[in-house]
Amino acid sequence: MTIQQGQQPLSRRQMIQGGAVAAAAFAAPAIVRAEEVHQWKMVTTWPKNFPALGTGANFLASIIEEMSGGRLKIKVFGDKELVGAFEVFDTVSRGTAQIGHGAAYYWKGKQQAAQLFSAIPFGLNPQEMNSWLYYGGGLQLWTKLYEPFGLIPVPIGNTGVQMGGWFNREIKSVEDLKGLKMRIPGLGGEVLKRAGGTPVSLPGGEIYTALQSGAIDATEWIGPYNDQAFGIYKAAKFYYYPGWHEPGTTLEGIINKKAYEALPKDLQAIVWNACKAANLEMLSELTAKNNDALESLINQHKVQLRRFPDDVLRHLRKMSDEILAEMAAADPVFKEILDSLYKFRKQVSAWHAVSEQMVLESRGL
Amino acid sequence: MTIQQGQQPLSRRQMIQGGAVAAAAFAAPAIVRAEEVHQWKMVTTWPKNFPALGTGANFLASIIEEMSGGRLKIKVFGDKELVGAFEVFDTVSRGTAQIGHGAAYYWKGKQQAAQLFSAIPFGLNPQEMNSWLYYGGGLQLWTKLYEPFGLIPVPIGNTGVQMGGWFNREIKSVEDLKGLKMRIPGLGGEVLKRAGGTPVSLPGGEIYTALQSGAIDATEWIGPYNDQAFGIYKAAKFYYYPGWHEPGTTLEGIINKKAYEALPKDLQAIVWNACKAANLEMLSELTAKNNDALESLINQHKVQLRRFPDDVLRHLRKMSDEILAEMAAADPVFKEILDSLYKFRKQVSAWHAVSEQMVLESRGL
Repeated sequence: MTIQQGQQPLSRRQMIQGGAVAAAAFAAPAIVRAEEVHQWKMVTTWPKNFPALGTGANFLASIIEEMSGGRLKIKVFGDKELVGAFEVFDTVSRGTAQIGHGAAYYWKGKQQAAQLFSAIPFGLNPQEMNSWLYYGGGLQLWTKLYEPFGLIPVPIGNTGVQMGGWFNREIKSVEDLKGLKMRIPGLGGEVLKRAGGTPVSLPGGEIYTALQSGAIDATEWIGPYNDQAFGIYKAAKFYYYPGWHEPGTTLEGIINKKAYEALPKDLQAIVWNACKAANLEMLSELTAKNNDALESLINQHKVQLRRFPDDVLRHLRKMSDEILAEMAAADPVFKEILDSLYKFRKQVSAWHAVSEQMVLESRGL
Repeated sequence: MTIQQGQQPLSRRQMIQGGAVAAAAFAAPAIVRAEEVHQWKMVTTWPKNFPALGTGANFLASIIEEMSGGRLKIKVFGDKELVGAFEVFDTVSRGTAQIGHGAAYYWKGKQQAAQLFSAIPFGLNPQEMNSWLYYGGGLQLWTKLYEPFGLIPVPIGNTGVQMGGWFNREIKSVEDLKGLKMRIPGLGGEVLKRAGGTPVSLPGGEIYTALQSGAIDATEWIGPYNDQAFGIYKAAKFYYYPGWHEPGTTLEGIINKKAYEALPKDLQAIVWNACKAANLEMLSELTAKNNDALESLINQHKVQLRRFPDDVLRHLRKMSDEILAEMAAADPVFKEILDSLYKFRKQVSAWHAVSEQMVLESRGL
């Protein structure tokens, strides 16, 4: 029904007494449909209902069902419920599930370049990642990368800037990185290794004990909200910042291309835009919850914050640039994406140095 | 149709040969609907197709039409096409249009507190605004504020951090603010006045001439992308940062409550989530375009960037705090909202000082 000027809007109950009846009664233009109900499965790399990330996947499924009027129902599976976290890519590629939620760096075994779409050390923050992906050519490159796998990638959320991690050893100079045993996966781990440290791979569940027993000197995890829930502060002396290795990790959606194309156009649009809405939602939630958690870590749990010294950050950045350049030299696809990312970083660094950064600084003057 | 494991997905053509037929043919569960077509009007405060803001409103209308399969069509009107910019609030409140797009500070004549939902000097950046609104209680307060007008508010976009403005006089100390004739509306203007300057109100179209003739010494506008399109650089010596007065201005959607409630639930969900998608979209676009524009302003147009000195920013912040405190003392509703905003700013400043700000700084080391 069209609400015209001056016309008294009818109540929801008056207006709809069963779809077809209402349409006839008000002689409004009508579209008659008999719509199929589509049932999708979403496999995720998170434990079921994992704070903000797993619940973000639930949120996505719920708004798609609401917007589609129940015509597209998505059942969400946590890690190991249908398949294990590291099988998510293949499961969606094969079409056993129609959509997946995780992070692109898990798929470097498929394509080294995939990890460029989650985060690189000293790379882009969340707002910048979204801008690069949607308006800086990033999403086109990502789409091309996943095309051979029958997958459509799409950003669905961002962890926000992560923390540098929990340390039982103080880092006062680059010398202190030497021999440092730290749980830090991916590119961050490679960088630490080149700086003389020993990156260790450990699943989340074993971090606490390893830190407490001294098997590792340090660990990174996510940010205050997730770190607090994990209780890591009880086993570490210092909480370091910034998270140079993951300055704004994009969470990844992968959609089976055939399943997507089999949807009617309106459901395709619903899925696509729901991912954008969920993207904003997750970062908004994490920002607010990280605020609260950081406050509580400092005030209730007396956590000691430490900042990596400038020369340590400079050194880590140098190592990071070297490693990424080597990877680009070995892989033209990696190079094409890294070049695009670097070009965007250069431009946005100039812009955000006079805008975002200055606004944050000016509040602290 | 459900895509099951191992089942060969049918092509879009095979599957849908007219809605009802396809549903019967594949014996899938189906929802039969005869849906009305809803026609909405969107009035905006922007000139038609105004870069990023007006085109953002167009984007919102287009995704709503796509997601609804044409069941909700929204015709977008620019400033003066249906009503003037400053009539948008009343027009939607009355139901002549069902949705509006603009910025809340235009409505301080209705409620002083409205402007707190666009931006305050030294307030929140875009990511923080979204987080405050969606997870910090902001949207509830905004909803309560607009309830008497029959309006539902919703964030739809953000300009990003704005620039400090274009100056023909250098600002080296707080003394230089005295007697400064500057086009700067709203709270920013109040702050400048208290600092000894003369805020001037001028519509966009008159800024260039006023600056060139010396009738004003300075003007703020938006950011590099919109400023460049306006050509202001040709009439000014210096481009100052940061935009202390508008650190991340939320663009406002207002929806007529009765019109919204008259929609079926699925269309309500589509409208609501489309606003989130458009919110992300607009900021992503502006971030990328501001990058390009700043680069071109500096390299092609040889614009000279200047940073406000620390003591000037400190002074402006002091004036701003005073003014906001006075407004809160005079208006309990204003106070309730300002308190919520300040509480959030305090927390998020602590969090972003060790995350966002440090990441941006560490890239420049």
